[in-house]
Amino acid sequence: MSDTLTFSAASALNLEPRLPPNPSSARTSTEQPQSRPFVTLTFATSLDSSLSLAPGVRTRLSGPDSKAMTHYLRSRHDAILVGVSTMLADDPALNCRIQGANSQPRPIIIDPHLRWTPQATDKVLQTCKFGRGLAPFIITTQHHDGIPTASREVLESHGGRYIQIPAQPDKATSRSRFDWRDIMTALHETGLSSVMVEGGANIINSLLHPDYHSLVDSVIVTIAPTWLGQGGVVVSPERVHDEKGTPAAAARLCDVSWIPFGEDVVLCGKLQTS
Amino acid sequence: MSDTLTFSAASALNLEPRLPPNPSSARTSTEQPQSRPFVTLTFATSLDSSLSLAPGVRTRLSGPDSKAMTHYLRSRHDAILVGVSTMLADDPALNCRIQGANSQPRPIIIDPHLRWTPQATDKVLQTCKFGRGLAPFIITTQHHDGIPTASREVLESHGGRYIQIPAQPDKATSRSRFDWRDIMTALHETGLSSVMVEGGANIINSLLHPDYHSLVDSVIVTIAPTWLGQGGVVVSPERVHDEKGTPAAAARLCDVSWIPFGEDVVLCGKLQTS
Repeated sequence: MSDTLTFSAASALNLEPRLPPNPSSARTSTEQPQSRPFVTLTFATSLDSSLSLAPGVRTRLSGPDSKAMTHYLRSRHDAILVGVSTMLADDPALNCRIQGANSQPRPIIIDPHLRWTPQATDKVLQTCKFGRGLAPFIITTQHHDGIPTASREVLESHGGRYIQIPAQPDKATSRSRFDWRDIMTALHETGLSSVMVEGGANIINSLLHPDYHSLVDSVIVTIAPTWLGQGGVVVSPERVHDEKGTPAAAARLCDVSWIPFGEDVVLCGKLQTS
Repeated sequence: MSDTLTFSAASALNLEPRLPPNPSSARTSTEQPQSRPFVTLTFATSLDSSLSLAPGVRTRLSGPDSKAMTHYLRSRHDAILVGVSTMLADDPALNCRIQGANSQPRPIIIDPHLRWTPQATDKVLQTCKFGRGLAPFIITTQHHDGIPTASREVLESHGGRYIQIPAQPDKATSRSRFDWRDIMTALHETGLSSVMVEGGANIINSLLHPDYHSLVDSVIVTIAPTWLGQGGVVVSPERVHDEKGTPAAAARLCDVSWIPFGEDVVLCGKLQTS
């Protein structure tokens, strides 16, 4: 295929300690099986922490090597997770195009209120139809009866499905939202042992909240040497206060490495849980 | 002195290509003398591009090595420049405490409306009095007659002075503001051949506007692996549009290097002028 990507073995080796156990290597006996998947949070930002110039505007931030890295990372996870806004804005294929990949990751779409109506012409389903990717699992709060029959039929005929999870009331906003623990438990129950969370900003910011730091195993951020300027779609978690009510850092990485990568840098680390 | 800092020769060597010509090394004959100082823009941010948790809140972002780097950079410039907000919030010494420094940089304070009233008890003037730093030059729009006599006397008795520069009307905001070219010309006329611009956010964001990219010779940004969260004091320049009115990146670095530095990374580059 003309759109196949390659990723150097040396770069892959640099990332290996940051990734879920390779299925080809046996687990050591000291590792405990988890009741949730291995979670990798990964995205690319500008120096002013923007994912894109504006909502729905695809923004080329990082170089071609970075795209290959994304697809290499996809090849090393059972699933890739995005929010419905990303789905609607980008019509992404959500597959893995790295050379030599022998399986495809399962796309997971967080869509509480079913804003996405699956259609056979959507790129993710086209990609699936041509055997180059899998149909998505959609995480929603809607009960079985609330899901349009046509949507269900399109999705299921491609091998996808809806997964219902109850939303929890949020004290701060009085809106209801998913608890990430419920989502990860549900994914684990479907047999997915690793998930790469790709975006967009709402998804990333909510996982960077201290409530969920213990749920994330690995963080990989590509930073491009550019400032997009005010008005971009920004990664910056909710403000956090310490016990005295003083503003405090929302998240910090430990076990950090910075890997220069063309003009960009790739930051790898783990979320500090204090 | 107990508060003397040291910076490794290896780290200094890494930064050397990013710094103004060393006074100890002769200029090569091909270099043209400039009508403005060599300008280095340098600051430290979180991953979400914040300088601090909130205005006026000193925030420890980066490690002790990073502090030593700042003081090493100060030793390599004739002047260090900050905005008046930084002056009022931090009461900084604005001197160089690197081991072996044989001169002190001149503090430059951008204070259009004279919000700072110099007093002998201010740390910058105390530092000067004890021979560990120089008294500041203050850039203001105020005419000679508008400057309180007491302020002038305190400042001048320490060796500092006021420099009057007319503000230019700003089309976008209808406020008046300095043109950085005027400031740099004025500094050059006082004999300063290099300036390190340190902050705060307003100063940095205005220098990152495309109007001024050709005025900046070197950018050195330290990034700490933490997210301060929403509500911080953010480095992100004004939104820029291309000729079609589409949002475009405000600034991009070229000639980039990323230097891991403890848990932080130091990004060096030049502003691309297209």
